[in-house]
Amino acid sequence: MIKLHHLEQSRSLRILWLLEELGLDYSVETYSRDPQTLRAPAQMGQTLPMAKSPIIEDDGQCIVESGAIIEYLTQIKAGGRLAHGPDSPHFAEYQQWMHFVEGSMMPPLVYDLISAATGTDNEGLTGFIQGEADTAFAHAEQRLARHDYLVADAFSAADVNISFALEFGEARGRLGGYPALQAYLARLQDRPAYKAARAKGGNYDLSIFGAGVADR
Amino acid sequence: MIKLHHLEQSRSLRILWLLEELGLDYSVETYSRDPQTLRAPAQMGQTLPMAKSPIIEDDGQCIVESGAIIEYLTQIKAGGRLAHGPDSPHFAEYQQWMHFVEGSMMPPLVYDLISAATGTDNEGLTGFIQGEADTAFAHAEQRLARHDYLVADAFSAADVNISFALEFGEARGRLGGYPALQAYLARLQDRPAYKAARAKGGNYDLSIFGAGVADR
Repeated sequence: MIKLHHLEQSRSLRILWLLEELGLDYSVETYSRDPQTLRAPAQMGQTLPMAKSPIIEDDGQCIVESGAIIEYLTQIKAGGRLAHGPDSPHFAEYQQWMHFVEGSMMPPLVYDLISAATGTDNEGLTGFIQGEADTAFAHAEQRLARHDYLVADAFSAADVNISFALEFGEARGRLGGYPALQAYLARLQDRPAYKAARAKGGNYDLSIFGAGVADR
Repeated sequence: MIKLHHLEQSRSLRILWLLEELGLDYSVETYSRDPQTLRAPAQMGQTLPMAKSPIIEDDGQCIVESGAIIEYLTQIKAGGRLAHGPDSPHFAEYQQWMHFVEGSMMPPLVYDLISAATGTDNEGLTGFIQGEADTAFAHAEQRLARHDYLVADAFSAADVNISFALEFGEARGRLGGYPALQAYLARLQDRPAYKAARAKGGNYDLSIFGAGVADR
């Protein structure tokens, strides 16, 4: 059976959500963030790769990286449901959104968080972060202003994957200028499987990460 | 025919390299970095999504994100060569390394660069960057100390994908403690297709990005 190593208030919520959407059998081990550093607890690193969540164990192997876990669950465990494999005409589009989330959207949000947490912001850095975040959010907004979902006008695991970046962006005060993204996020959060994941996932209050540098 | 929008001294080199490895027909439009900001020139954003390289155009569509472009080229244009699709027993492992590169390895290197460029380093930030970089590099080192390639003991597009992060890490003085990664990178750079890409790709001197915060 699939085992999810789940960190509260983290990227891992989307894996819990996907497991619910796919109706797969799974167990969860939940970890709390270190209250001082807000990072994953050291114990995760003692037996697991990289002390980073999410991690799944299945069939004797550990798999890390949310994007890879999503590919594995949809393609290998659920026969391609909620995904677009190489035989789908939407494969390129799907891959693009899957890689966009951690490749373009999350990095400026994390720079912003770390910069604020370590007291290292200045005009140059804030401008860089703002520019990168705007580029990524505007790119997604453009798509969602004309479509209900990222790929092929149907809900897919790419929507699950981007959800955390939008929630994290919202907690950092970055969603104000993007009405289509706000409406889209509300649509995602209204899904029964999302609500079931939230009920099972422990704490999920991303406001612990505070507001962005630009808002201080 | 595939058209690559290629930015000199960038992540895009790996796409040029993959096109050479796969022997695909392609054309290249090369862009130079803005000499002041070292960023992609504004002209890229006038007609292309996000003014970020690499971007490929094929069959009337633009595809962004290196990982997605690699999936498209291998799976759709080259019948799965150098890749592991859902029917491969190495699919999960392959996906994991594909998502690891921009998900875990590049972010601390980019924080480090931007922090140095904007003069915003302090002990807290440097410690965070060092910790994140060590976690990612040690994870890859552990694999490469016992295997010649990332997946299934054979060269694949996952190796192409990670190459830029290693080269960028080397330019930022981060490869010193990782002998297996150094040997692996030299092995990759010795491939004829890599050399052909370097010959076609224009400037590729990553030392323009300077040394890391920890080394200043």
